[in-house]
Amino acid sequence: MNTIERIKKHQSIRKYKNLPIPKKIINEILETAQYASTSGNMQSYSVIVTSDQEIKKKLFVPHMEQSMTLEAPLFWTFCADFNRIKKWMLLSETTFNYDNFMAFMIGAIDAILFSQNVSLAAEEKGLGVCYMGSTLANAHLIAPILKLPKNVIPVCGFAMGYPDENPESRDRLPIEGIVHWDVYNDYSDEDIQRIYRQKNEMFEKRFLKNKSLTKQIEEKSVKNTAQVYSILKYTQEAYKKYSKQLLNLIDGKDFFNN
Amino acid sequence: MNTIERIKKHQSIRKYKNLPIPKKIINEILETAQYASTSGNMQSYSVIVTSDQEIKKKLFVPHMEQSMTLEAPLFWTFCADFNRIKKWMLLSETTFNYDNFMAFMIGAIDAILFSQNVSLAAEEKGLGVCYMGSTLANAHLIAPILKLPKNVIPVCGFAMGYPDENPESRDRLPIEGIVHWDVYNDYSDEDIQRIYRQKNEMFEKRFLKNKSLTKQIEEKSVKNTAQVYSILKYTQEAYKKYSKQLLNLIDGKDFFNN
Repeated sequence: MNTIERIKKHQSIRKYKNLPIPKKIINEILETAQYASTSGNMQSYSVIVTSDQEIKKKLFVPHMEQSMTLEAPLFWTFCADFNRIKKWMLLSETTFNYDNFMAFMIGAIDAILFSQNVSLAAEEKGLGVCYMGSTLANAHLIAPILKLPKNVIPVCGFAMGYPDENPESRDRLPIEGIVHWDVYNDYSDEDIQRIYRQKNEMFEKRFLKNKSLTKQIEEKSVKNTAQVYSILKYTQEAYKKYSKQLLNLIDGKDFFNN
Repeated sequence: MNTIERIKKHQSIRKYKNLPIPKKIINEILETAQYASTSGNMQSYSVIVTSDQEIKKKLFVPHMEQSMTLEAPLFWTFCADFNRIKKWMLLSETTFNYDNFMAFMIGAIDAILFSQNVSLAAEEKGLGVCYMGSTLANAHLIAPILKLPKNVIPVCGFAMGYPDENPESRDRLPIEGIVHWDVYNDYSDEDIQRIYRQKNEMFEKRFLKNKSLTKQIEEKSVKNTAQVYSILKYTQEAYKKYSKQLLNLIDGKDFFNN
């Protein structure tokens, strides 16, 4: 299977076989993934690969009690890491310049590019992953569990294991919805209706049939897909809280000395 | 070639043949890349694909006058985008909750994962890319050139074209330098010396032989690789400037209403 076919086969896996992943496979995935582009060839990231069940139990709460945290054999946490570089700089008798927001973002980009390579290399090896946004939303709770020092911040993460399900590929917006030629061509109301038609239809086709949502949909008088997102799933209250937590963590990990 | 082999073949390409990229290929790359994981299946990103030479000339300055901006047939700019979602939310008669830092980070992660898929799909098609950190460092100058509205911020970007060079793969740290098992195991001085041995040796093997660096190395009494980074390449002054510019842009694009 070539890489185009491999990328198109991606689906988030939430159910895993009770099978460990051999260390040899993990190492092959790591060796492969580190070919990702990295700013200035600095590799300003680290990854924490957690298999210990006691530590996964601790991660369960900040990962919003999603079952994958406990049931997958491995949990991967990708971090912006300038701690290692700081130690290298100080041993090399030079100044450490990377305790600022730009450094955090550079490390985050490095970590995320690397994570996507890990994800694809793992899928090539017959494994499946499920990215978990809770990594960033609750990074301030995950950092102490994983004993992260100053200058290290979790950015993204996923559960990984051998798939025990074969879900359908998720819907995507039509390509015209995400690409702009030469410069940004802002969307008219008609564009938006066309781009989001399939997503709007999901309200009846999917959300109204989802038993865990129907009660909430009725109680809060939710009447379309966008409202499922803004009223039920990703509320203003939650996003404000996550923003505050994350900015505090960035500050506490010494990425705001600027 | 399978995906493991494909990922390992990555090298940044800075010299391109004077050959346009057929629109059919660009569309196939886009169709493929959008299978990347995306938070809440929101696809909170956009990509600007620029081929117009006049616009590339304008991008040349914020991209620090790197020749790839002008010489590659295409320049890709990946953006965190909540403008499209905002319009959808307002048309759907609901509140827009994503004018905060968490939303910016969610959009950034989505955009970066997508960009790595674009990069790999392009390489599968015989193309090469060169990520350019200037996208983030000078995002505030790039945004008006690409006519980005509020709630849209450039995060990463690359030049793309058919390779006219075949550089060697760049050095990488040993795997033990970037992975931690179960929790973060902080580095001893000996660990750092071992992990950075190859990088330290590059000072004599590479930087002292680089004519564009030797004068600066002498003038500033630079004596090792870490100092090349901290004194010549990525200075405190520059990082502080980039941090300030980027935080101002995030605020100006309405991602700090929290």
